[in-house]
Amino acid sequence: MSAPLRLGLAGLGTVGIGVVKIVQAQAGLIAARAGRPVAITAVSARDPQKNRDADLSAYAWETDPVALARREDVDVFVEVMGGHEGPARLATEAAIAAGKDVVTANKALLAHHGQALAEAAEAKGRLIRFEAAVAGGIPVIKALTEGLAANRIKRVMGVMNGTCNYILTRMQSAGLPYDAVFEEARQLGYLEADPNLDVGGIDAGHKLSLLSAIAFGTRVSFDAVELEGIGNVSIDDIRLAEDMGYRIKLLGVAQLTGRGLEQRMTPCLVPADSPLGQLQGGTNMVVLEGDSVGQIVLRGPGAGMGPTASAVMADVIDIARGLRLPTFGIPATALAQPVPASSATPAPYYLRMTLLDKPGALAKIATCLGEAGISIDQMRQLHRPGDRAEDAVVLIVTHKAAPADVAHATGRFAATGVLVGQPVAIRIEEV
Amino acid sequence: MSAPLRLGLAGLGTVGIGVVKIVQAQAGLIAARAGRPVAITAVSARDPQKNRDADLSAYAWETDPVALARREDVDVFVEVMGGHEGPARLATEAAIAAGKDVVTANKALLAHHGQALAEAAEAKGRLIRFEAAVAGGIPVIKALTEGLAANRIKRVMGVMNGTCNYILTRMQSAGLPYDAVFEEARQLGYLEADPNLDVGGIDAGHKLSLLSAIAFGTRVSFDAVELEGIGNVSIDDIRLAEDMGYRIKLLGVAQLTGRGLEQRMTPCLVPADSPLGQLQGGTNMVVLEGDSVGQIVLRGPGAGMGPTASAVMADVIDIARGLRLPTFGIPATALAQPVPASSATPAPYYLRMTLLDKPGALAKIATCLGEAGISIDQMRQLHRPGDRAEDAVVLIVTHKAAPADVAHATGRFAATGVLVGQPVAIRIEEV
Repeated sequence: MSAPLRLGLAGLGTVGIGVVKIVQAQAGLIAARAGRPVAITAVSARDPQKNRDADLSAYAWETDPVALARREDVDVFVEVMGGHEGPARLATEAAIAAGKDVVTANKALLAHHGQALAEAAEAKGRLIRFEAAVAGGIPVIKALTEGLAANRIKRVMGVMNGTCNYILTRMQSAGLPYDAVFEEARQLGYLEADPNLDVGGIDAGHKLSLLSAIAFGTRVSFDAVELEGIGNVSIDDIRLAEDMGYRIKLLGVAQLTGRGLEQRMTPCLVPADSPLGQLQGGTNMVVLEGDSVGQIVLRGPGAGMGPTASAVMADVIDIARGLRLPTFGIPATALAQPVPASSATPAPYYLRMTLLDKPGALAKIATCLGEAGISIDQMRQLHRPGDRAEDAVVLIVTHKAAPADVAHATGRFAATGVLVGQPVAIRIEEV
Repeated sequence: MSAPLRLGLAGLGTVGIGVVKIVQAQAGLIAARAGRPVAITAVSARDPQKNRDADLSAYAWETDPVALARREDVDVFVEVMGGHEGPARLATEAAIAAGKDVVTANKALLAHHGQALAEAAEAKGRLIRFEAAVAGGIPVIKALTEGLAANRIKRVMGVMNGTCNYILTRMQSAGLPYDAVFEEARQLGYLEADPNLDVGGIDAGHKLSLLSAIAFGTRVSFDAVELEGIGNVSIDDIRLAEDMGYRIKLLGVAQLTGRGLEQRMTPCLVPADSPLGQLQGGTNMVVLEGDSVGQIVLRGPGAGMGPTASAVMADVIDIARGLRLPTFGIPATALAQPVPASSATPAPYYLRMTLLDKPGALAKIATCLGEAGISIDQMRQLHRPGDRAEDAVVLIVTHKAAPADVAHATGRFAATGVLVGQPVAIRIEEV
């Protein structure tokens, strides 16, 4: 058996301790599968005194992760600190400069600096692995980069932020408004220190941008992801969508069409009986569509100590086994500069609005849609207990329409004089 | 760019032609991802004159796959003929003897001869890859061998024969009996030449035995798989299970417990609202459970030209990229001889029986169960239109019970004198 693969572990939060636990508990299994032992030689964290639920006494300590990254006795720098600037970035750069392979769970770092880091690593003959950065324990990077390598990828979709899916499914099941469930999630410790990373769709957008780079052979372009969080999703829309056979998800979609590269992380309606529609709670799901394979759906835990550490260690074991690929599947210098799509793929839209309940009101709305070239698939007019007597709630599901046409039409609703408040328009993604 | 990786393709049926199509249509994409071109140099099939929907004029022809396997200009022998003896076995052995890597879609061959073939290949420093042999286009071998490599695998489950799942879901949705749907499936061309390979659970059992070897580091032991086909699943049970919130699936389960290695491919009840329960038609699903990652669910097309060829080519691209692992994840000589489980893990059971509708009948059945240590979770007595006036149909869902105890109890039902016909007992797998 060969010499041990030596890890320098930067970060001893939940994921870091998870990695320690796996390395210690599964040493024999990992050595058998990897063909060589895997050992942690040194760790770093801000506070060496903090009580952590693991025996770290056998490891050298560094308070500076950059020093850890440069240690002679480290082969692989494992970065599970987080943050796209500061220590995580500096230490990752130092590790690459020192000729180490890097395994990271840091989606933000790669979404912002993935191209530069990958180029630097590949120039040194080193690699950056990041299975844990996307969809936690689900081996989706591997499935896309290797399992579907013979396919032209048509579309990648996913629910990749468990907190958002927890909030949306809890709103639905308990009938509670967003603010109440957001507060629950905060108290349960489900939210990042900056909750906008979760509910603003930023974390999930980071993940989508990484999948997109692999799927389409393009440079990571997080800035081009259309981002909309879940803060404006109302319990009304969740209920009304359910009545029409849909559920609302914070759904990431990336596809490359003749119009360019589309990347969206936005609330969407999906059929309630589809795998995505059925996804409850904090579980993640990624859907990969290839020209030969058709549709592959992967489902599993998107966060947590065990699942995330499982993904980190899968990358470590790949390295121990000698499985070496460029960061994004093809050499970083060969990744194309993506052209952001001039417009999104047409889709059906769900529209909800309140109208004055008077003759001709609906006709005026229908005219706005018709003039924008949008045809109506379903329409319902509701009057529910609690609605004002003079108001009518109108739901419309359109046939496929270009998003710009929908925006144009709904922008003209106000001028009809029959609209109360603002209309809601949500894309229905066909899955 | 390096020299092309040269394929010798044995078999030009659906899957073989699918491979040809991908190699031809995606040459540029594959070369970019693999870092070198992938080319077919020679093919073999029984009838060179047969009209096939692909341009094969650039390839050398061999009528004997053994000759193909030995060609100097072949690096990788791609076997998509099928059959666990005869030409497929001889040619695979010849390819290994000649120092070629092997990519195969042949689950039967590996289920019967996997250990000997893997040892022979590894002795030569060659590898056998078989992603296409299990669950078609789903990259499940890769997910299990690599993606979950840091996990002690607790259980592997799967619906891995699309024809069986088609038949069972069609029975349910159309309310048709087994024989009628079997005949439909035959006419649609969904059945193997020997239908028992499908409906007898043999094909799915082959697949389970391969997953089991990787999951538990044990030699393939197809002969130890408990096999029961779907021929005895009645439309009555499908309907009654549905009423109780369950669906019937031909479900493979492999787990390693203190009792030994359990491998079952049998009809089971699963909750209707679980991912397995929701699986309709010919789609496959594999559930992988690891101690760190928890539960990962993979879903996708289990057969067909594109999906199967996608999996074959994923293996080819791995080889072109230099990703090399032992056939079953660890060296074949290190695989343990599995000890078949002395008894299966206890589970709840669904029992259906017809009793004479007279006082005390149910008490006698309940006594048989109680004396076998089996307690009752739910019980329903039905009398449906068409049932004989003097009969009552009784459904029982038990609490967890050992299969041997269930067999013992139901074996004693006849002696009560109140049983009409045979009782039905189906395991409820907790998923």
